Amino acid sequence: MMDTALPVRIVLSHTSHPGNVGAVARAMKNMGLSELHLVNPCEYRDYEAYARASGADDVLNAAVVHPQLHSAISDCGLVFGTSARQRHIPFVPVEPRDCAAQAVQVAKAGNRVAVVFGSERTGLQNEELALCHHLVTIPTSDVYTSLNLAMAVQIIAYEIFLAARGECAAPERDEPLATIDDLERMYVHLSDVLEGTHFRDHSQSGNLMSRVRRIFNRAQLDQRELRILRGMLTALQDKQQA
Amino acid sequence: MMDTALPVRIVLSHTSHPGNVGAVARAMKNMGLSELHLVNPCEYRDYEAYARASGADDVLNAAVVHPQLHSAISDCGLVFGTSARQRHIPFVPVEPRDCAAQAVQVAKAGNRVAVVFGSERTGLQNEELALCHHLVTIPTSDVYTSLNLAMAVQIIAYEIFLAARGECAAPERDEPLATIDDLERMYVHLSDVLEGTHFRDHSQSGNLMSRVRRIFNRAQLDQRELRILRGMLTALQDKQQA
Repeated sequence: MMDTALPVRIVLSHTSHPGNVGAVARAMKNMGLSELHLVNPCEYRDYEAYARASGADDVLNAAVVHPQLHSAISDCGLVFGTSARQRHIPFVPVEPRDCAAQAVQVAKAGNRVAVVFGSERTGLQNEELALCHHLVTIPTSDVYTSLNLAMAVQIIAYEIFLAARGECAAPERDEPLATIDDLERMYVHLSDVLEGTHFRDHSQSGNLMSRVRRIFNRAQLDQRELRILRGMLTALQDKQQA
Repeated sequence: MMDTALPVRIVLSHTSHPGNVGAVARAMKNMGLSELHLVNPCEYRDYEAYARASGADDVLNAAVVHPQLHSAISDCGLVFGTSARQRHIPFVPVEPRDCAAQAVQVAKAGNRVAVVFGSERTGLQNEELALCHHLVTIPTSDVYTSLNLAMAVQIIAYEIFLAARGECAAPERDEPLATIDDLERMYVHLSDVLEGTHFRDHSQSGNLMSRVRRIFNRAQLDQRELRILRGMLTALQDKQQA
């Protein structure tokens, strides 16, 4: 059934309250999602977690734990990071509805998709956001912008459920998307090529490569496009070494 | 402000968990709602309620308690009852989005509107539903239809917030976007750099540059990002000509 087969993963990074992990499991199961991944979580299998998971203890029991974010999303072709805050980096946040539409379309084309949520207190770290293709922000009142973690998951999961249920146009891209691992290898390759030049990071903050990542994350490269870019980098490298 | 003035009331009937009352207060404040009415609630002003209310203790403190549903909605011009289940009464359930659109329209016309949620275990009683104009049902997976009470309020409040906000312009980026002319100059620059290498177009159709264009068009570069990419190209060119 569509309900369980949709490969959209919920990733919680550095969650500190077991109750939130349980509540997230329930929110997911209500909306037909089952893949829960936890990055360096608190000790979460306690009474509070199972109480809040209620009938979703299967989702909680099947949760996969990772030491850091990278391994939780390395096989994903599309990754959304969530944030309540405005960042000073040029991410254009998408809203949950757009996030869900994209997530479902890309998942239905056979790619793995993840939506990542940071810790209750600090949200996602900038290094974590740098791994994400898009930033998704849930609209809130200006007066009180901080949603409970499980509530945020509930809203995203609800939108994903609606998008999956709804009429969905045929996916427009037939080529599989580049995975996070593919992208990481490309960034290493690009750094190597630039190393051979006098290119310098003139940005005050020294975060030039993170800006470059953001460009390519936003572009959501597919495998063929990745090969083209890698081919260019190889050609440039050959020339430098000639 | 629209945020606080929208007269849409959340009514919880026979709630049994203080934590849920607190979580509802937070969910409401996040979405700009402030009128919380409680019908025959549990003793709710405890540690758990205030912990889950987090920064929304003002909403919790201002909650109005009623002995039965009627007095909580007597001044309302439009009342939605919520239910997860199919009832044997001839209600045609509306979905949260339609509920929100109607609620906001009617509230903006100066009427009071209420959305009523039943107890955690049994939901709204038939006598309570009979007082409501419409039944609203949140779509869920068939596998697990029972949403946590505060989660249900969060979804309805989120839809009300979106409906009240109305059409909203896409989020803006502070840096101006690269123009078509800027992009064209970058593509020429990139071609020049590749010219100096043995990079060849291996695509059958010879449309490699059009694929590259598609990548950067999709990324919607801004001026600063364009300068970074042009800087890299210049550095590569200098190296080639050295």
